[in-house]
Amino acid sequence: MADIKVTVWNEFRHEKKNEQIGKLYPKGMHGAIAEGLKKAGGFTVRTATLDEPEHGLTQKVVDSTDVMLWWGHTAHGEVKDEIVQRVKTRVLEGMGLIVLHSGHFSKIFRALLGTNCSLKWREMGEKERIWVIEPSHPIAEGLGEYFELPHTEMYGERFDIPQPDRLVFVSWFQGGDVFRSGCCFERGHGRIFYFRPGHETYPVFYDENVRRVIANACRWAAPRIIKKDACPNVKEPLDPVPAEE
Amino acid sequence: MADIKVTVWNEFRHEKKNEQIGKLYPKGMHGAIAEGLKKAGGFTVRTATLDEPEHGLTQKVVDSTDVMLWWGHTAHGEVKDEIVQRVKTRVLEGMGLIVLHSGHFSKIFRALLGTNCSLKWREMGEKERIWVIEPSHPIAEGLGEYFELPHTEMYGERFDIPQPDRLVFVSWFQGGDVFRSGCCFERGHGRIFYFRPGHETYPVFYDENVRRVIANACRWAAPRIIKKDACPNVKEPLDPVPAEE
Amino acid sequence: MADIKVTVWNEFRHEKKNEQIGKLYPKGMHGAIAEGLKKAGGFTVRTATLDEPEHGLTQKVVDSTDVMLWWGHTAHGEVKDEIVQRVKTRVLEGMGLIVLHSGHFSKIFRALLGTNCSLKWREMGEKERIWVIEPSHPIAEGLGEYFELPHTEMYGERFDIPQPDRLVFVSWFQGGDVFRSGCCFERGHGRIFYFRPGHETYPVFYDENVRRVIANACRWAAPRIIKKDACPNVKEPLDPVPAEE
Amino acid sequence: MADIKVTVWNEFRHEKKNEQIGKLYPKGMHGAIAEGLKKAGGFTVRTATLDEPEHGLTQKVVDSTDVMLWWGHTAHGEVKDEIVQRVKTRVLEGMGLIVLHSGHFSKIFRALLGTNCSLKWREMGEKERIWVIEPSHPIAEGLGEYFELPHTEMYGERFDIPQPDRLVFVSWFQGGDVFRSGCCFERGHGRIFYFRPGHETYPVFYDENVRRVIANACRWAAPRIIKKDACPNVKEPLDPVPAEE
Repeated sequence: MADIKVTVWNEFRHEKKNEQIGKLYPKGMHGAIAEGLKKAGGFTVRTATLDEPEHGLTQKVVDSTDVMLWWGHTAHGEVKDEIVQRVKTRVLEGMGLIVLHSGHFSKIFRALLGTNCSLKWREMGEKERIWVIEPSHPIAEGLGEYFELPHTEMYGERFDIPQPDRLVFVSWFQGGDVFRSGCCFERGHGRIFYFRPGHETYPVFYDENVRRVIANACRWAAPRIIKKDACPNVKEPLDPVPAEE
Repeated sequence: MADIKVTVWNEFRHEKKNEQIGKLYPKGMHGAIAEGLKKAGGFTVRTATLDEPEHGLTQKVVDSTDVMLWWGHTAHGEVKDEIVQRVKTRVLEGMGLIVLHSGHFSKIFRALLGTNCSLKWREMGEKERIWVIEPSHPIAEGLGEYFELPHTEMYGERFDIPQPDRLVFVSWFQGGDVFRSGCCFERGHGRIFYFRPGHETYPVFYDENVRRVIANACRWAAPRIIKKDACPNVKEPLDPVPAEE
Repeated sequence: MADIKVTVWNEFRHEKKNEQIGKLYPKGMHGAIAEGLKKAGGFTVRTATLDEPEHGLTQKVVDSTDVMLWWGHTAHGEVKDEIVQRVKTRVLEGMGLIVLHSGHFSKIFRALLGTNCSLKWREMGEKERIWVIEPSHPIAEGLGEYFELPHTEMYGERFDIPQPDRLVFVSWFQGGDVFRSGCCFERGHGRIFYFRPGHETYPVFYDENVRRVIANACRWAAPRIIKKDACPNVKEPLDPVPAEE
Repeated sequence: MADIKVTVWNEFRHEKKNEQIGKLYPKGMHGAIAEGLKKAGGFTVRTATLDEPEHGLTQKVVDSTDVMLWWGHTAHGEVKDEIVQRVKTRVLEGMGLIVLHSGHFSKIFRALLGTNCSLKWREMGEKERIWVIEPSHPIAEGLGEYFELPHTEMYGERFDIPQPDRLVFVSWFQGGDVFRSGCCFERGHGRIFYFRPGHETYPVFYDENVRRVIANACRWAAPRIIKKDACPNVKEPLDPVPAEE
């Protein structure tokens, strides 16, 4: 089986501006995510970041991507609408998209889901326990009943998303909140997975379970077909239509 | 029970440009739809059209609308993005939206669903039989097993929409096609219903079954709550979070 | 609007066998639930219990019920299959069914859903916080963002149910678990709501929020239509079928 | 990749009682289905029939089956409840189940879905056109926009099933009906696919498209995990629960 071609997109600003985050992710979060996928095997991995020309997402890059990962937070508004449209078109044609953590507020996620994608949040470094609701879902492969992140930002309900086509994970937070933290959507011919963990101030993308989920999600979201959109006028009916009286 | 406040939006171009359509709908399609709702009772009905200032959809109009109906076809591109955003915000806050026929390609429908909303089509004036798949759904109230339109434009699959939260009608076309012609969606706090019938060259909006469906849909889509979007930082946890070591 | 005819079914064994539970619910849990519905108004309420003839669910009672509530725990196996089938037939014809707490393992719930309906559980009297995931759902009407039960039995995931048609509540438990505690299903022409709270050793059915949810659920589950099942041979086609060559 | 272990179950009565059907399917419909799967490759195929001891579905056979196909019609009532329960348990543990045509009324399908599974039907040998609603679904792999059966029994709506987790095919019938003819469900850890075609008096199971769908469905329904049901009492909380005051 050929490798799945993954492009890891990262805003890549926190790592450059904040010394502590820079130390945590010396190659950027995209670097840590890419490293995890390479270790898992079966993926050809590229990265792309906001400050590259066309945000690193030229038509050529997008057209040769099977699954894109998206991490953004502080600069959602700087992502050009034209690039968002390019990625959206490709998702609807069949490319997979994995949206991570604060990417819930990215233009691409909101454009594909149509809702505000707002939520509650709190930064106290509390514990998160991610429960596996659908143990037979491919994205949960190899996980136990739950896994934990000892310290993380909290995201709480209500999460303003359309009802997921499949809810795979639900998070428990020490401070008293819950969150739908693993949500599958199908849009056009593409598959979308939203995965909650991934705050920039914690070593989340080095966590073995998080890496496993991301690799599983990339396999799940790999295209089944790639198909251009059309709205054809089919002039000839398949069965006879009598002339109107 | 108070009346449901309905705003019927119509592009209102075909009726002015095409003599035959003008004769068929002398008060515009919006006029015929409004008339049907008034006959049904329980609705306070306004209309709004593309060529009015702000397309007739001022903030005041939108904010005082419970359910909006949308018919557009030839001038989707002329609807201002700012007005689309205004309507979208209101739907996510809880307003109902009924999208009719060629409105499948409207900016508002595509923005709320996130997909292309493309389909197949054919103009031969063929027969359509609309089957009721969910007879207990409020939108099907009072209908039989099916109803027919003797002559209409055909819309065929694949219809590029997210899986509907509820599929109420499926159409059979004489020429050999099928179509998911009554589709319910919930987005934010609002309810959306897509209803296929409504081609401008046929007297569809005078049909008793079509009028019944539209009235049922307006009742179904009436707001349960109206709620502004927010993404709050909840600093105080509900349960104690120990300080990080 | 006519009253909704509710039948509250209770196993009614714990209250008779356990002194403390008997004191907590001197009229049985069914009595407390019925009292809550009467206070809410708009309901005609009857009760029925396991040890009555036909478990209190004669054909006449079932046929004149709009919405049935079901609480069972220790004697699921004693409910006669014939009565289960009677209730199931009625649900598929359009009657609403509200399944409470340990009713997850009742014959009627498992027969209607087709899965095991198993879950995790723990009796430590821990705190439960019930988060409202869909604030615009009719079952959540009048609730805040969450409500709490100070002491209750825990139910945890994985809950072996089909994906709910709508997930309204998710619970957070002090001991670290989460649970999908308000689940809507549509089966046949009937609506089913599973509601987690209701352990016999706590005064849950006197709680104002629990009572509100139960009243809301009874309104939501009230029949839209009542329709007998059929599998008709429709010999005459609606459109001409040429004879086979 | 190891072969998928398929068991094709057939009632196998029509073929023995009706000369014409016997000629059409000299090795039984199970034989024709098995032949199609063998040609497709990647499957180890067994067959089992009603009149064998335990209907050919001993515990050993069931426990070593990845995907079961089910064709029944005239003798649903003769299938022993104990065997139905055995198959159901295995599906909930993760085995795939493909239910064909008149199997809509089988005990196993009704037990897993919880509804009546009734429909409309007509035997006139009319044409069926099966439209692919979800071209990117694995079950539609390699199909065009539609495929046709020149002569077949008609099944029409309303089909009394829970809303499918995914609707892949919708049929158009010459006589004027439509039908949801390819429906995916997930129950427990198992996947279920209902596929409408397969009437005993037509050579449907020799059709290349039908065979392709069945092979695709077997691949789609192959177990992701196999997991016994449990309802554990987890006495130790993961997080501290203070003693009740």
